[in-house]
Amino acid sequence: MIERLCIIGVGLIGGSLARALRRRADCPEIVGASRNAAHLQKAVELGVIDRYETDLAKAVAGADLVMVCVPLGAMEKVFTRIKDHLAPDAVLTDAGSAKGCVVEAARQAFGAVPSFLVPGHPIAGTEQSGVEASFAELYEGRRVILTPTAQTDAAATARVRALWEAAGATVSEMSVEHHDTVLAATSHLPHVLAFTLVHSLARLGDHDEIFAYAAGGFRDFTRIASSDPVMWRDICLANGEAIVAMLDRFGADLEDMKSAIRAGDGETLLARFQAAKQARDGFTE
Amino acid sequence: MIERLCIIGVGLIGGSLARALRRRADCPEIVGASRNAAHLQKAVELGVIDRYETDLAKAVAGADLVMVCVPLGAMEKVFTRIKDHLAPDAVLTDAGSAKGCVVEAARQAFGAVPSFLVPGHPIAGTEQSGVEASFAELYEGRRVILTPTAQTDAAATARVRALWEAAGATVSEMSVEHHDTVLAATSHLPHVLAFTLVHSLARLGDHDEIFAYAAGGFRDFTRIASSDPVMWRDICLANGEAIVAMLDRFGADLEDMKSAIRAGDGETLLARFQAAKQARDGFTE
Repeated sequence: MIERLCIIGVGLIGGSLARALRRRADCPEIVGASRNAAHLQKAVELGVIDRYETDLAKAVAGADLVMVCVPLGAMEKVFTRIKDHLAPDAVLTDAGSAKGCVVEAARQAFGAVPSFLVPGHPIAGTEQSGVEASFAELYEGRRVILTPTAQTDAAATARVRALWEAAGATVSEMSVEHHDTVLAATSHLPHVLAFTLVHSLARLGDHDEIFAYAAGGFRDFTRIASSDPVMWRDICLANGEAIVAMLDRFGADLEDMKSAIRAGDGETLLARFQAAKQARDGFTE
Repeated sequence: MIERLCIIGVGLIGGSLARALRRRADCPEIVGASRNAAHLQKAVELGVIDRYETDLAKAVAGADLVMVCVPLGAMEKVFTRIKDHLAPDAVLTDAGSAKGCVVEAARQAFGAVPSFLVPGHPIAGTEQSGVEASFAELYEGRRVILTPTAQTDAAATARVRALWEAAGATVSEMSVEHHDTVLAATSHLPHVLAFTLVHSLARLGDHDEIFAYAAGGFRDFTRIASSDPVMWRDICLANGEAIVAMLDRFGADLEDMKSAIRAGDGETLLARFQAAKQARDGFTE
């Protein structure tokens, strides 16, 4: 098992992982790291981490597993800071929402894709952020996708898999490219739509009234527009190609829908709404 | 107060209103009506209505308030069937999600917009439908919009207002046209987006996998795609002009967002996501 876990970025994702592991008898020592000492101190007070370092070189020293939970745009900088200080047997993993860019960041920082890098992505989260929002049950019954590269050592993948399973998650593996396409569809596209919708409505002249008359459907639909803007900017930059492809597809379908509404074509509208409801109801089960 | 309430269409909306009123000492006799006797019998067994009629002429006889809760596409037919059978002092109202089309349906059926017609719209609902999904608390603390016309008798509006307030709702009034614009933005547009998104994704080659990796955000975002397809077809046909205008506006904003993603313009993305988060967080409070 792991003796010392270093979590770089102790927010909702990293903090919840730490909390989940702490409930176990075989919990490793957990060292938190980031630039923000006050934030890390809070994490210690909440009992989320054992101790912290604001110097990444010191933070990773002696850790056999390093989990990087920072926005995608900060990955390369973090990798560069820690590369000369990792323990010889350390495994490096991350929790970023896109994976191609993480592999590329590692290639830039390390000069080649390291065998000890296991890119990962827990399919979990809330629209909240920060360690205060973290909770031990976040990963229970949720999926974690690992995207080992051609260079990744199988033993390293196994260690990361065991870590997430210990937190209650179900782990699966797929290629980096496939991950980025699937997530563009199921997560990145809906977030872009929700942000755009709220931004659109907020600019209407009578937007206070607009929001006053919004009902539960709107609340649910736009909840994800409360997500962290920096994280989502980074995701859009990091997985832009796949997101734009999904936006193109969605935009074409939306044009079709608009044409059907404009033409008063009830048959087409009904067929599409029925197909969507069937797919969505199936997802609920 | 009302002595006898006739509810035409006893589903989620009509059934929940009946349930809310039944908790009160001054509950009127509630007569349910629709074409489906088995459905109405179920409503009697659930204690939602006192009795039922499948003949609309008999159903409205002697009722001092008639509430029509049928899909928008069925309004004109219902109005035509009941017009010669309403009590002399009866007030007629509805719960349709668009109001211009209801006024037009009444004009067609009655030959002119009746003084006893109070178009109304409870801003409440779930993605469920049917009387089994109805519950007494649906309208508590929720808004109901009444859109009295130039012809509407003020006393009729007051009676409908009192009915919804008795069910726990906050009632406000606005013009038919303004209602249809506001609702196109807050409700109809999000529903069209959710239906379109699920329909788009369901047609991807690996759609089972797509849905398997969807997380809570996707679940929330697409919940409204489980709504009743017939009801939503009718809303799109009935309020098409306002919905198309909102789709045009949203489509332009989405194109801008796509351009920013394609250009790697992090500054624009961040500014928009921050503005959206701020607006959405304000809505939550």
